[in-house]
Formats: sequence, structure tokens, C-alpha cells
Amino acid sequence: MQTISENRCFGGIQGVYRHDSAACSCPMTFGVYLPPQARTGSVPVLWYLSGLTCTHENAMVKAGAQAWAARAGMALVFPDTSPRGPDVPDDEAYDLGQGAGFYVNATQSPWSTHFRMWDYVAEELPRIVTANFPIDEERQAITGHSMGGHGALTLAMGQPERFRSVSAFAPIAHPARSDWGRKQLSAYLGERESAWALHDATLQMQARGFDGEVLIDQGTEDQFLDLLMPQALAEAMAARRQPGAFRLQQGYDHSYFFVASFMRDHVEFHARALDLI
Amino acid sequence: MQTISENRCFGGIQGVYRHDSAACSCPMTFGVYLPPQARTGSVPVLWYLSGLTCTHENAMVKAGAQAWAARAGMALVFPDTSPRGPDVPDDEAYDLGQGAGFYVNATQSPWSTHFRMWDYVAEELPRIVTANFPIDEERQAITGHSMGGHGALTLAMGQPERFRSVSAFAPIAHPARSDWGRKQLSAYLGERESAWALHDATLQMQARGFDGEVLIDQGTEDQFLDLLMPQALAEAMAARRQPGAFRLQQGYDHSYFFVASFMRDHVEFHARALDLI
Repeated sequence: MQTISENRCFGGIQGVYRHDSAACSCPMTFGVYLPPQARTGSVPVLWYLSGLTCTHENAMVKAGAQAWAARAGMALVFPDTSPRGPDVPDDEAYDLGQGAGFYVNATQSPWSTHFRMWDYVAEELPRIVTANFPIDEERQAITGHSMGGHGALTLAMGQPERFRSVSAFAPIAHPARSDWGRKQLSAYLGERESAWALHDATLQMQARGFDGEVLIDQGTEDQFLDLLMPQALAEAMAARRQPGAFRLQQGYDHSYFFVASFMRDHVEFHARALDLI
Repeated sequence: MQTISENRCFGGIQGVYRHDSAACSCPMTFGVYLPPQARTGSVPVLWYLSGLTCTHENAMVKAGAQAWAARAGMALVFPDTSPRGPDVPDDEAYDLGQGAGFYVNATQSPWSTHFRMWDYVAEELPRIVTANFPIDEERQAITGHSMGGHGALTLAMGQPERFRSVSAFAPIAHPARSDWGRKQLSAYLGERESAWALHDATLQMQARGFDGEVLIDQGTEDQFLDLLMPQALAEAMAARRQPGAFRLQQGYDHSYFFVASFMRDHVEFHARALDLI
């Protein structure tokens, strides 16, 4: 693992690191924020998964999460959103290929060699970060924005022992029924829709739910409401009696100004689940 | 004045606007954050001046200031750092020309037509924002980072009636004696060094000081310490018995991770001076 940069930030360290990923068969870059409390012992961790077109960097510089993580004593991990590089397949569209991994293990050509973001976030990167940083793997939580909210919800329900809490900002809530989803799930997983079910938060909420609290924030002025389909997930949460909250935030859009505005609530939500407050 | 974008942010509005600047003889873009309190009356304002290579956007998305401004009930204004455009002179170096206006009125060719950032920030943009937004021009404060810290300090001392408080993050503290300064002041103002004095925070602190409190934060691991010359300004502040604080922050560098880490302190410092808390 190679250190790209480390900057003091709210009394802790915001680092960027690179490693050769076995899951993705290419070098992968990620960010880790260690709060001041990590100097004297291991700390719980909140995973943050980003959305379409993002790298590890967007949330790291724009979401303001470190302020609240430092106060709570929580590490943050910011994975990239896909494999990258000249040898990695890509597509001209912003929403397929590099920057758009959708947190699945692709089974279809040309994607299946590198696009294994489920394994990367579920298995490989957790091993890397717990081996290299003072992180308590017994206390993990996960969140994300848009495609990353989709990833957070599907990973949390797909790895039921791993996370104590899950939240999402404007998640892609029902990709099996949306143009943000059908295109990518077809390309990565093939046309057989039964293979998509593990990668649809609404279908997972209907089938199994989450053993813990769930927090969803969605802006009422989000320019992508038709693609996100929040109503499907809200209905599924209520039908399952899923503990948690689905909040509609008046006037907010899909931007990081929305994410930053409610980041404190999300970090403190996870801090309670992780026994920090 | 043209609206480029408006996003809900911490209950207020983060906007970006463009107007034809008479001072700079070109279109200029700026950001304004209005806190929730601006819906029911005029609010005080904190000006944020950015550093070399920045636009209006950097601090707006990376400094996290809106969280604290919303709480305090304070507007934020984010000007650009220079005139811009294909008709505006530039230099290949990152630290001269576009993105590097140094907050002076250039008197030398080819800069003098457009590079009038002192007049722009001191006179023109204040008229624009007070005419278009619910801002109380009797309650103004100013801050900035690096070249913007230089601008904040020199404007605050050069317009003694305008600002109640001034602060700076890692300011270029003594440009008349630094390679971050001598090059630009020579190019914009000519070789006669007496013309530079109004644009050197240390010289202004020696000559007149500021009628109010001053807050300076400087990281001890700043990669540009030799160019910033914080010791010159610290000495001048102490010699003048200038009310305020000059703080060395252990382990912090020159990045926005440093700025964000202490933004709350700066916003609350100005909020006290502006009678908000």
C-alpha cells in the first residue's frame, strides 16, 4: 500500500492511499480519515460510497464529514466508484464503465475482469484498511450518495453481520425499474433480471430488510427524482416495518450542498449505533 | 446580474452569479451564501477571499463555512481571484495573471486594463451584493486564505471604516519581502517599492494596524512557510499591541483541510464582532 498524501484535518489525518487490487485487477485509490482518537486506540468506521462520476475524492473534500467524525471518534473510508486505468474497459456514457461501477461483480464481457466492486468493498478493502489502520472491524457502518446510496443499502442488507447501521443520501432506490439501473445491471450482470435482485435496495428491503436502523434523506427538489424512485423504497420500508427514518428534505437538490447539509445527522446517527454517543 | 446556480444548503441558499464588472472590464463570477435568517431580514456578511489558482468556487465547496454561517446567521461572499476570459491578459505561471490578481489595482501594462481587484472587492462588488441581497452593509467582516489572507488583511487595514473584524488562514504576510509578492507587485504596480506598501499586511500592521480584533491561523507544517513569512506579521502585531490572536496550529499544512478545520473558529470570531453571539 502506497501513501499518496496525508493532511492534518480536524485534529486527525485525512490520507489517500493506493494499492494493487486483486478484486479489480488494477491499482485502486481510496481515502481514509482517522480522527484524533485513533492515536490512542482503534476506532469504529463509517464507509462512504460515492455516486456516478465520482472518485474517492469528492466526498473527502466536499461533504464536510471529517468535522463530525472527529467529534464522534469515528474513522471514514472513501473508496473509489470503479476500477480505473487505460487497461480497464470504459464507455463513453458517464453512467457506465469507469466512475460507474454500481457496486456489483460484473459477469458480462467486457466488464467481468475488472468490475468487481462488490467484492472490493465487501471483502478486499475491509481487509486492507483493518490491516493498516487502527480500525475496529466489529464496529462498522455504511452510507453513500446516489449510486453510493444504492451501494450502501445493498451491501448492508447483503452482508447482514457486518454493519450496525446504514444510511443514504438520495439513493438510487429501485434500479431494477429505473433507467439508472436497468442499463447498468443489464451490461454488468446480463439480461436475466433474477440476477439483479441482490442489487436493488427496494427488492432487498422487501425480501429481508436490515437488522438495525436505517436513515434515508432525499431532497424534494432533486433533479433526478424520476430516476431515484424514492417512493419505492419508502413503501418497502414502511411495509416491512423497518426501524429507521425516511426523510424528505424540502428544497434540497442532488448536489453535495445537500449531502453536506445533513452529514452531521448521518454521522451522529451512526455514532449512536456504534456506541460512541 | 445573472443567476448561474442556486442550491439549498444548510437551510439557506448557496448561489453563484455573474455580472459585467466595470472595475475589471469583463464578466465576473461570484458566490453568495444566504443563511436561513436572510428570509426574514438583512444579515451581516463575511467576505472570503481565495488564494492563488482559485476561483469563487474553491472555498464555496471545500471550506465548510456554510454550516457555521447558517448557525450564526451570517451571509458569505466568495469573489473570484482575478478577471478572466480570452480577452484578459495572462501569464504561463500559476502565480501571475488570471487566478492571481493579488487584490491590487494594476498600473502597469498589460495588466492595468483588467486587473483592478482592489476596486472590485473594495467598491464594486459590495454595491452589487448589497443591492441584490438582504445584506446589512453596516456589519461586514473579512477573511481569506493565502493570497486571499493577504487581500483580507490589506483591505481591512486599507478600508478602516468598513470591517468590524478581520481574520486570515495562512496569509501571504509580507509580500514586499517574499517571492510570493515581489514578482507580482513588480508586474502589477511597477518597480517603485513605495507603491507596494498598501499591499503588504506586515507593513500596514506596522503603519496603522486594525481598529478591531484580528485572528490569524497558520499551520506549522505548511509547505509554503518560507514564502508566507508569518513571523513578520506576528512580530508586527505584537509590536503594535494589536488586539487579536496569532495562532500556530501544530501539524497542519496549506490545504483546505487546514482551512476547514478552523473555519468554525473564524466564523464564530466574526459572529462575535458582528454582534451575532
